[in-house]
Amino acid sequence: MTMPISRFPVPELSALPDDIREKILAVQEKAGFVPNVFLTLAHRPDEFRAFFAYHDALMLKKTGNLSKADREMIVTATSAKNNCLYCVVAHGAILRIYSKNALVADQVAVNHLKADITLREKAMLDFAIKVCLDSQTVGDSDYEVLRQHGFDDEDIWDIAAITAFFGLSNRMANVISMRPNDEFFLMGRSPR
Amino acid sequence: MTMPISRFPVPELSALPDDIREKILAVQEKAGFVPNVFLTLAHRPDEFRAFFAYHDALMLKKTGNLSKADREMIVTATSAKNNCLYCVVAHGAILRIYSKNALVADQVAVNHLKADITLREKAMLDFAIKVCLDSQTVGDSDYEVLRQHGFDDEDIWDIAAITAFFGLSNRMANVISMRPNDEFFLMGRSPR
Amino acid sequence: MTMPISRFPVPELSALPDDIREKILAVQEKAGFVPNVFLTLAHRPDEFRAFFAYHDALMLKKTGNLSKADREMIVTATSAKNNCLYCVVAHGAILRIYSKNALVADQVAVNHLKADITLREKAMLDFAIKVCLDSQTVGDSDYEVLRQHGFDDEDIWDIAAITAFFGLSNRMANVISMRPNDEFFLMGRSPR
Amino acid sequence: MTMPISRFPVPELSALPDDIREKILAVQEKAGFVPNVFLTLAHRPDEFRAFFAYHDALMLKKTGNLSKADREMIVTATSAKNNCLYCVVAHGAILRIYSKNALVADQVAVNHLKADITLREKAMLDFAIKVCLDSQTVGDSDYEVLRQHGFDDEDIWDIAAITAFFGLSNRMANVISMRPNDEFFLMGRSPR
Amino acid sequence: MTMPISRFPVPELSALPDDIREKILAVQEKAGFVPNVFLTLAHRPDEFRAFFAYHDALMLKKTGNLSKADREMIVTATSAKNNCLYCVVAHGAILRIYSKNALVADQVAVNHLKADITLREKAMLDFAIKVCLDSQTVGDSDYEVLRQHGFDDEDIWDIAAITAFFGLSNRMANVISMRPNDEFFLMGRSPR
Amino acid sequence: MTMPISRFPVPELSALPDDIREKILAVQEKAGFVPNVFLTLAHRPDEFRAFFAYHDALMLKKTGNLSKADREMIVTATSAKNNCLYCVVAHGAILRIYSKNALVADQVAVNHLKADITLREKAMLDFAIKVCLDSQTVGDSDYEVLRQHGFDDEDIWDIAAITAFFGLSNRMANVISMRPNDEFFLMGRSPR
Repeated sequence: MTMPISRFPVPELSALPDDIREKILAVQEKAGFVPNVFLTLAHRPDEFRAFFAYHDALMLKKTGNLSKADREMIVTATSAKNNCLYCVVAHGAILRIYSKNALVADQVAVNHLKADITLREKAMLDFAIKVCLDSQTVGDSDYEVLRQHGFDDEDIWDIAAITAFFGLSNRMANVISMRPNDEFFLMGRSPR
Repeated sequence: MTMPISRFPVPELSALPDDIREKILAVQEKAGFVPNVFLTLAHRPDEFRAFFAYHDALMLKKTGNLSKADREMIVTATSAKNNCLYCVVAHGAILRIYSKNALVADQVAVNHLKADITLREKAMLDFAIKVCLDSQTVGDSDYEVLRQHGFDDEDIWDIAAITAFFGLSNRMANVISMRPNDEFFLMGRSPR
Repeated sequence: MTMPISRFPVPELSALPDDIREKILAVQEKAGFVPNVFLTLAHRPDEFRAFFAYHDALMLKKTGNLSKADREMIVTATSAKNNCLYCVVAHGAILRIYSKNALVADQVAVNHLKADITLREKAMLDFAIKVCLDSQTVGDSDYEVLRQHGFDDEDIWDIAAITAFFGLSNRMANVISMRPNDEFFLMGRSPR
Repeated sequence: MTMPISRFPVPELSALPDDIREKILAVQEKAGFVPNVFLTLAHRPDEFRAFFAYHDALMLKKTGNLSKADREMIVTATSAKNNCLYCVVAHGAILRIYSKNALVADQVAVNHLKADITLREKAMLDFAIKVCLDSQTVGDSDYEVLRQHGFDDEDIWDIAAITAFFGLSNRMANVISMRPNDEFFLMGRSPR
Repeated sequence: MTMPISRFPVPELSALPDDIREKILAVQEKAGFVPNVFLTLAHRPDEFRAFFAYHDALMLKKTGNLSKADREMIVTATSAKNNCLYCVVAHGAILRIYSKNALVADQVAVNHLKADITLREKAMLDFAIKVCLDSQTVGDSDYEVLRQHGFDDEDIWDIAAITAFFGLSNRMANVISMRPNDEFFLMGRSPR
Repeated sequence: MTMPISRFPVPELSALPDDIREKILAVQEKAGFVPNVFLTLAHRPDEFRAFFAYHDALMLKKTGNLSKADREMIVTATSAKNNCLYCVVAHGAILRIYSKNALVADQVAVNHLKADITLREKAMLDFAIKVCLDSQTVGDSDYEVLRQHGFDDEDIWDIAAITAFFGLSNRMANVISMRPNDEFFLMGRSPR
């Protein structure tokens, strides 16, 4: 049995605009499968393009002090606060890969205060979760704490923007019932 | 005295990439001033481009049953739930213009249940606010209510996506202390 | 079309007890219109008299360090927390008049942490909002913070009492669907 | 040892205006002691007069379908939601007296859904608690439920107004640390 | 009229296993009546035995710095947060007995911040309430505060375990509508 | 490096009372390792005995309509609401084993409304989560919904008791920072 991956129609690859199809095929080539977010959001090509342009600007950014694992840790922890099944499972998998740590994704998804992370990472997640759940009260003291852990203002923008962007993604995934690919659940769990 | 419009550096127009500067000048030409969101987000050109591509895909979309006033009403009501000063003031102004109604923006910002809106609009905002605050519980019954008010599934995607996108915008505005232009406060308030 | 201003019967001026009719006519003389709170609450003359006696004791008080604008700022900010359309709109208007500031009412209604207010005013609103939403935890440290900003104990009583009184007003307005007069929306918005 | 009954100065009876002193002496005559709310609020004579005028208009009202026990039950249940020690203890005592029921006050203070009350009383408290905690969402369906239990619109106003008024009282008591008289704790507890 | 004490069948004493019947008779001998928790939970003998073994391990423990009154104060305050009628009433009664204080149970049930308790007791209840409502954020700083008030780590375990155990009890009592015996309401209220 | 598994001393097996050591050795024999909950709670032998007696009464119960997978699903979903790392990870693993489903544990931990579960299971978890987070409002209508899904009253007791018991466990684990064994993270994830 195949479970639906979205409440909305999922386009055939052949029916998609060339740029979108090519992006999807490139991902498939690299990952070995097509993450469902690519297929489900392709229902709206213009939004798809903007979504992934935004995603890539934040997650593939070459500058700043956030590692790729840091970014995925932010996504995993904040998506858990938004109870987004797709993002916790998919980005939890990517976090395991990037961090080469089989345990940390489940840890930060359940309770980042009990995770095996550094004080710097904890401060990063404290802030991300505040942006996620209570951005209205963010202020000077939050900036100050992050600076004390070595983050500069551009890093703070990055943490906030990643959180804000995946807050968008979480809401879309929840509304359309985006289903994570089965592959993600097991990725990065085995010791090497 | 001029108040800062962002915690982050605001680039000079002359220092911006051509496409961004041209977009900003076009807005200025049309509106008579440059809304601060264009200047403050230009700090990050790649994110700027993705942000406005997403924005335009949702807010300038020509199809579907949501009017321009509907879209702005969603933005105003949900931004109030996120306590985002910039978006409530700026999009409240645009809502007054599009709806030719001087009162409705303040009404939906404070309490949409007491606003002079139709049952269809109320259902639209009920759903948008649920996506904003509690997307994890969105399900079949929410879709059903909206369909009973004449919204089809593509409209439901639009309501959710507008809410999700401005949730991103709200969080960025709160984190960087984006200040609304003084012009917005008075726009569309005078009877004609 | 005239919208109803209350779920309950609104008495004719001529049918009211003399003291109440005279109070209403005096307000009309001064303001140029009768704010709906006078008409809607006149449905219960005894409660009307007590309500306005309490209101005047707090808002027309001549002593202490709270300015008239301070008092209206407290009302506007806390009424927004209670999502009371009448009080945010009506007292926001009065706040604009007393403060000679066209922007501050919308600012404190959406997010007082982003408003153009002094640290003293911010401390005043922090406390008022705590009394509004979580009075059970008010204690020594709250008094201490306010004293550091120059408020004495009588001022603290004033802030609390204004918040508490308008919490009553907010609940009544929400329950009876008290509608703000259209006049309030535009008052005090134009620069002079 | 005598515990302070307020953070603020408590006036001597002899120093009070005549009308206030007489009201207090009358209460003492009837109750056998002076409830502390009279002494603590006498710190502000004008507010005292308005407070008790409002109180009496709501609690001594002769018309309508709410019994005196109903009124005290509303006060006890909603004051518990506001964690107001003075009002839960003092009005719980009066509720025991009026209802001739030694158990009901503690029951509704802890969880009205488990109290020995009628369905009509439960509907009354459900509504009062909604007005207390979430008045912004009160609407048609709330009125409808109450009407089905035999309450008319004037009764609904009464329930709301009592809740709103004691919300004011709860906040003042919490801020000034108003202490309930020891007498209240035992009143009405013994079977007769 | 006798009110039901549980939604579930309440076994006859004669139908119970010997060990349970004997335990119940011993309690009756000592207290003069059988608290309903013994009768209602006897519906499930194995769970009954584990429940009271756990209860006795925590509440009859001879070591450590928590007095019997401390333990009952924790139960009363946290059960109020869980709105558990049985536990607030029954353990409030026992608290009055052990503390020889007729007022403190009602005080901590309504608002421990306004109760006549020591700073040590307040810190104990602050922690217990955090464990009750937000255990996920308990961390080093909570331990530190308690140590400053003279609690050692074993005492901290005791406070947490009592809170956790009665959280179980509160949920069972709420689900089965466990009714407190009338006797509890009056116990320990009279001055001696 | 070995991470601590508790803030409290963890006893050596050899130092434990015989019955506890034997229980632990039996678990080790069966599972291949000793789950940390046995070692960390052995710090308090009497509580250990009561804890596991209660656990076994609920989780090894032979009667009723809840399968072993049902029981573990309740534990996983409610422990996630309490942000208990130990229980989500350990019982999620056991749920994968019992259900022979590699995905369902992560699904119900993040958002049971998006999990691949039956309507009966969803009703069971809806109720368990209500008992976990808001037991004070459980009432007739909750029982009615469960009966419509084929649960009888004894099953309802089971769901509530399992939720209540693991609420105790969650709080203890959060307070003592109980660490899940690394083994749990990977258990039951590979397709067979």
